[in-house]
Amino acid sequence: MNLFYAPNCSAGECTLGEEESKHALKVLRLAIGDSIQVTDGKGKCYKAAIASLDSKCCKVDLLNALPTPARRLWSLHIAIAPTKNNSRLEWFLEKACEIGVDSITPILCEHSERRKIKTERLEKILLGAMKQSQQYYLPVLNPLMSFDEFLSVTGADASTTYMASYKDGNKELVDACQPGQHTTVMIGPEGDFSEAEKERAKLNGIVAVNLGQTRLRTETAGIVAAHTFAMINKIR
Amino acid sequence: MNLFYAPNCSAGECTLGEEESKHALKVLRLAIGDSIQVTDGKGKCYKAAIASLDSKCCKVDLLNALPTPARRLWSLHIAIAPTKNNSRLEWFLEKACEIGVDSITPILCEHSERRKIKTERLEKILLGAMKQSQQYYLPVLNPLMSFDEFLSVTGADASTTYMASYKDGNKELVDACQPGQHTTVMIGPEGDFSEAEKERAKLNGIVAVNLGQTRLRTETAGIVAAHTFAMINKIR
Repeated sequence: MNLFYAPNCSAGECTLGEEESKHALKVLRLAIGDSIQVTDGKGKCYKAAIASLDSKCCKVDLLNALPTPARRLWSLHIAIAPTKNNSRLEWFLEKACEIGVDSITPILCEHSERRKIKTERLEKILLGAMKQSQQYYLPVLNPLMSFDEFLSVTGADASTTYMASYKDGNKELVDACQPGQHTTVMIGPEGDFSEAEKERAKLNGIVAVNLGQTRLRTETAGIVAAHTFAMINKIR
Repeated sequence: MNLFYAPNCSAGECTLGEEESKHALKVLRLAIGDSIQVTDGKGKCYKAAIASLDSKCCKVDLLNALPTPARRLWSLHIAIAPTKNNSRLEWFLEKACEIGVDSITPILCEHSERRKIKTERLEKILLGAMKQSQQYYLPVLNPLMSFDEFLSVTGADASTTYMASYKDGNKELVDACQPGQHTTVMIGPEGDFSEAEKERAKLNGIVAVNLGQTRLRTETAGIVAAHTFAMINKIR
């Protein structure tokens, strides 16, 4: 079943945005009356039917609400330095969404080479991944912020924050964190966090952890963190 | 430390292949006397120094052998259908190598759209990922084979074979498999294995498993299988 996204849909009729309308008409070549599903990306999903078709504005009748999947009792926030090669960050977003992540904050670190991101494109990737993996919750992409700004806000949501750091004699993430918790994991850029950044994080009560025995690329570290978390909440 | 690959190196002197020589001279701009490390991709690694430089043939003195890391007591073989979009398969290879995999077999399935692979390019990606993640074991890339050929050979190495299948009421991989074992996981193409393939696998004693609650793309399923395995062998 084709899944569409309409952030403000509720019972009755709803209008798909331009991108979604184009996708329905031009890519999937749907016709009036065809069955689809529409989610608001916040857990709600409806069985729906195409009511009118236009490449810029497609109207759908929301027929009945599907059961909202129970929200997980834990949440994962990944703060990650944008990779030098843009496509690596995009891959991370797609895979983390497929595997399971609640929010993502791109952070600028001392060793960051890329200092700009294409927010709109990244949001599209998250949306595509949510729909492709048939989920009804869209991960939140927060605005880019500096390492220090991030330090000043993390933990405010009562989550525990970990910093991934390769082989620093620290515990492995899987051993450090517990199931059922709200957790934030910080992933550094190519070239890692600087020593000064590690020090400042420590002063802020952030726990340094490693992600295993091999040296992982930034985007792989992000995916491994997401999946470690899924496993911890599955196994323990 | 820069890690180089020379499959037949042993104590004394050794010559790097053309690609590795070019990398030393043109990319890293190394000079005679510079320290490097050289691995044979089978667990051996040497501290070494550049003895002579030529973009086609760089000679190195192998100074002393580093301790060979203990081979894991388990092994993981992933049989995966090449993805329609070539870069997705390449991405899987890079990430699986970083996370940990011993061998990979591309398999042609009924629903496979891509029926050819670029073996040389894929081997280069594995090599790059091994070096980047500072490992001394190079995963083996087996030749492309058909689903049925694969069924006829899998398990001959006394490994247990699982088939990843989305939501078939099967156990999850993490619950089905045990630590410390030789395991093979089969990952299907976009569009999944066909019903007939699933049936033939079952007749061959292959256990169908799922990889969690969300629908994963082929390459994500491969990465998740590799990391699930690493976790099982870490936690249990």
